[in-house]
Amino acid sequence: RKRILVTGGAGFVGSHLVDRLMVDGHEVIVVDNYFTGRKKNVGHWIGHENFELIHHDIVNPLFIEVDQVYHLASPASPPHYMYNPVKTIKTNTVGTINMLGLAKRTRATLLLASTSEVYGDPEVHPQAETYWGHVNPIGPRACYDEGKRVAETLCYSYAKQENVAVRVARIFNTYGTRMHMNDGRVVSNFILQALQNEPMTIYGDGQQTRSFQYVSDLVDGLILLMNSNYSQPVNLGNPEEHTIREFAEMIRDVVGGKNSIVNKKAVMDDPKRRKPDISLANKVLGWKPRVSLADGLRKTVAYFKKELELRT
Amino acid sequence: RKRILVTGGAGFVGSHLVDRLMVDGHEVIVVDNYFTGRKKNVGHWIGHENFELIHHDIVNPLFIEVDQVYHLASPASPPHYMYNPVKTIKTNTVGTINMLGLAKRTRATLLLASTSEVYGDPEVHPQAETYWGHVNPIGPRACYDEGKRVAETLCYSYAKQENVAVRVARIFNTYGTRMHMNDGRVVSNFILQALQNEPMTIYGDGQQTRSFQYVSDLVDGLILLMNSNYSQPVNLGNPEEHTIREFAEMIRDVVGGKNSIVNKKAVMDDPKRRKPDISLANKVLGWKPRVSLADGLRKTVAYFKKELELRT
Ligand SMILES: NC(=O)c1ccc[n+]([C@@H]2O[C@H](COP(=O)([O-])OP(=O)(O)OC[C@H]3O[C@@H](n4cnc5c(N)ncnc54)[C@H](O)[C@@H]3O)[C@@H](O)[C@H]2O)c1
Ligand SMILES: NC(=O)c1ccc[n+]([C@@H]2O[C@H](COP(=O)([O-])OP(=O)(O)OC[C@H]3O[C@@H](n4cnc5c(N)ncnc54)[C@H](O)[C@@H]3O)[C@@H](O)[C@H]2O)c1
Ligand SMILES: O=c1ccn([C@@H]2O[C@H](COP(=O)(O)OP(=O)(O)O)[C@@H](O)[C@H]2O)c(=O)[nH]1
Ligand SMILES: O=c1ccn([C@@H]2O[C@H](COP(=O)(O)OP(=O)(O)O)[C@@H](O)[C@H]2O)c(=O)[nH]1
Ligand SMILES: O=c1ccn([C@@H]2O[C@H](COP(=O)(O)OP(=O)(O)O)[C@@H](O)[C@H]2O)c(=O)[nH]1
Ligand SMILES: O=c1ccn([C@@H]2O[C@H](COP(=O)(O)OP(=O)(O)O)[C@@H](O)[C@H]2O)c(=O)[nH]1
Repeated sequence: RKRILVTGGAGFVGSHLVDRLMVDGHEVIVVDNYFTGRKKNVGHWIGHENFELIHHDIVNPLFIEVDQVYHLASPASPPHYMYNPVKTIKTNTVGTINMLGLAKRTRATLLLASTSEVYGDPEVHPQAETYWGHVNPIGPRACYDEGKRVAETLCYSYAKQENVAVRVARIFNTYGTRMHMNDGRVVSNFILQALQNEPMTIYGDGQQTRSFQYVSDLVDGLILLMNSNYSQPVNLGNPEEHTIREFAEMIRDVVGGKNSIVNKKAVMDDPKRRKPDISLANKVLGWKPRVSLADGLRKTVAYFKKELELRT
Repeated sequence: RKRILVTGGAGFVGSHLVDRLMVDGHEVIVVDNYFTGRKKNVGHWIGHENFELIHHDIVNPLFIEVDQVYHLASPASPPHYMYNPVKTIKTNTVGTINMLGLAKRTRATLLLASTSEVYGDPEVHPQAETYWGHVNPIGPRACYDEGKRVAETLCYSYAKQENVAVRVARIFNTYGTRMHMNDGRVVSNFILQALQNEPMTIYGDGQQTRSFQYVSDLVDGLILLMNSNYSQPVNLGNPEEHTIREFAEMIRDVVGGKNSIVNKKAVMDDPKRRKPDISLANKVLGWKPRVSLADGLRKTVAYFKKELELRT
């Protein structure tokens, strides 16, 4: 039984992680500034003796005693992280420095939720952890991409210099229940459009690819990685790759809608292909995703349906 | 006549910039923590009514009133920036945030001393500003390379969001008088070795290339860029490219030494080729380097000779 801090624990991924850690009997402390997260996501734990929720912005120092830190706090969807690029960078630099300072003082292990965006618009396919990436340092996505890259650099600098135990998960596109309705990412957009019989909006020609993992698979991977002895970056993602157009059609099928699919203007620096090479995770963690896209989408569509009903 | 802040102004490049700005009649404030800089480099201005020297670490906030900020504070040579990688990143992230916060409040124009290291170990040759770079985010040089990349990202984020006027100079290898004796970079190492009749140490096979500019050319470029209207990154460097072996031989010739040239172990992630494409600087600033390598080396050798004499 451990004392575990989850930064960004009121968000989409964080709240699922909290569920698992609580069920496993740990003491869990969530720190969140509610920028994109919601109290509701962890509402079912409020009042539980092993659970604590702290309203705090990690750009400011935090002094608590813990054994492990899952460091997830950061805006994650392009519309959110571009909304206030300065804050996005401050969270990933100053915020990460604070959490590493805390891990250093408490001798906790810190797991950074990094991202496939460190590979940028990749020129190598699929992406293995050895790939250095192809990122525009001054483009519109840079506040997130470069913020996460330097957050990784910070982890290894604190590891080398201060002996902080670090884990780095490079997370590929993830979807599932509790995604924010106005998240702006492709899964929530398409599902909401299909459910509301609106045209599904593809940015560009739809030939760009992504590979989507269901959130429970990711949570498995994060916990395995934290408790492993492997300290170098590890990809966590589902290698099943689809074009965005295929993806739109699949979602329409699952929903059973009849709406149109329309092409909008392409967005700048949009990665053209993305697919994780997960042989490393398989080797060092014995991990691979278990939830099929069809199953995951069914659960997610059911969730959004309920959310829409609650709204009206 | 302007009030001008030079962070890192007691360093090699900074002190030459200060000389020029003082001669031009400006009010100059130097902020430095003397990590690699020395009071001596600006000692000739101490007591001048237009000059002020503040002992301050930019990782902490600074509140002064200025019109322009030349933001140069950062360790710059590989042995220095690897000595304390955490501090290197803090200086380039937290320190840059503080200076951008200051520029935002005072409405000053901020020029960032960025670096050719944002291109990493380049796969495009020569390097133009449009190249996204090839950087290992978790390698031994990452604290500097990623620190500078995200410093650039911060500049454009403050520019977009807070209307801060920014200039970004991507500086290529620079040498000249006032280089630190124990700098560890190739020019000072080779000159000191040649002057002291020690073997000249080439890391690796010496076939890697660099292009060296003399410091006065760089100072011209920095001042032109600051006072231009061009806000995107601009390369400043001398496109004359040499292998490190050729470079060792040239320096031995200038010194007139008879010492041997030896090959040592290659260093990790050492860029194999580097040469600036300076057509942009030429177009938007009318700038190009004027000091030949032979002239620059003669001046620099004379400087190191005197420094060695002072020591004994
Ligand atoms: N979901 C994905 O597809 C995906 C892919 C790659 C990486 N990630 C990473 O996983 C993590 C979680 O992502 P998510 O999809 O759950 O996003 P999310 O937006 O749902 O969760 C992020 C949480 O962090 C909180 N937060 C943001 N800034 C904060 C600050 N300064 N102080 C305190 N709390 C702050 C938000 O309020 C939110 O609760 C992020 O670090 C993200 O970069 C997610
Ligand atoms: N010289 C080159 O070849 C070269 C090439 C590319 C970029 N640059 C950049 O130009 C700038 C100046 O480089 P330089 O060669 O003069 O190096 P330098 O080491 O001589 O100068 C850097 C100065 O910054 C000061 N400094 C460092 N950290 C600080 C902090 N936290 N607070 C306050 N002051 C601090 C140092 O004491 C020093 O005086 C650096 O930003 C460097 O990255 C230099
Ligand atoms: O329990 C802690 C310990 C440190 N920090 C912050 O973490 C940062 C980095 O810590 P580090 O030890 O590297 O910095 P130092 O205190 O040496 O400047 C500092 O700014 C602290 O404010 C924190 O928030 N909680
Ligand atoms: O309504 C939308 C939202 C996104 N996308 C595209 O879907 C892909 C995934 O985008 P998302 O924002 O989900 O995440 P990313 O992987 O780009 O961070 C990108 O190519 C987007 O341009 C789209 O076509 N329509
Ligand atoms: O004259 C100033 C103004 C701001 N700052 C610092 O610059 C940082 C970034 O400023 P910004 O305005 O972005 O931050 P905010 O004050 O809004 O948090 C802050 O942490 C301030 O401490 C500074 O050092 N000098
Ligand atoms: O004593 C030395 C110092 C450096 N180098 C090489 O010279 C080049 C330039 O190194 P420097 O540290 O001056 O700057 P960099 O361009 O690598 O930042 C690199 O290939 C180094 O490996 C060398 O051969 N001998």
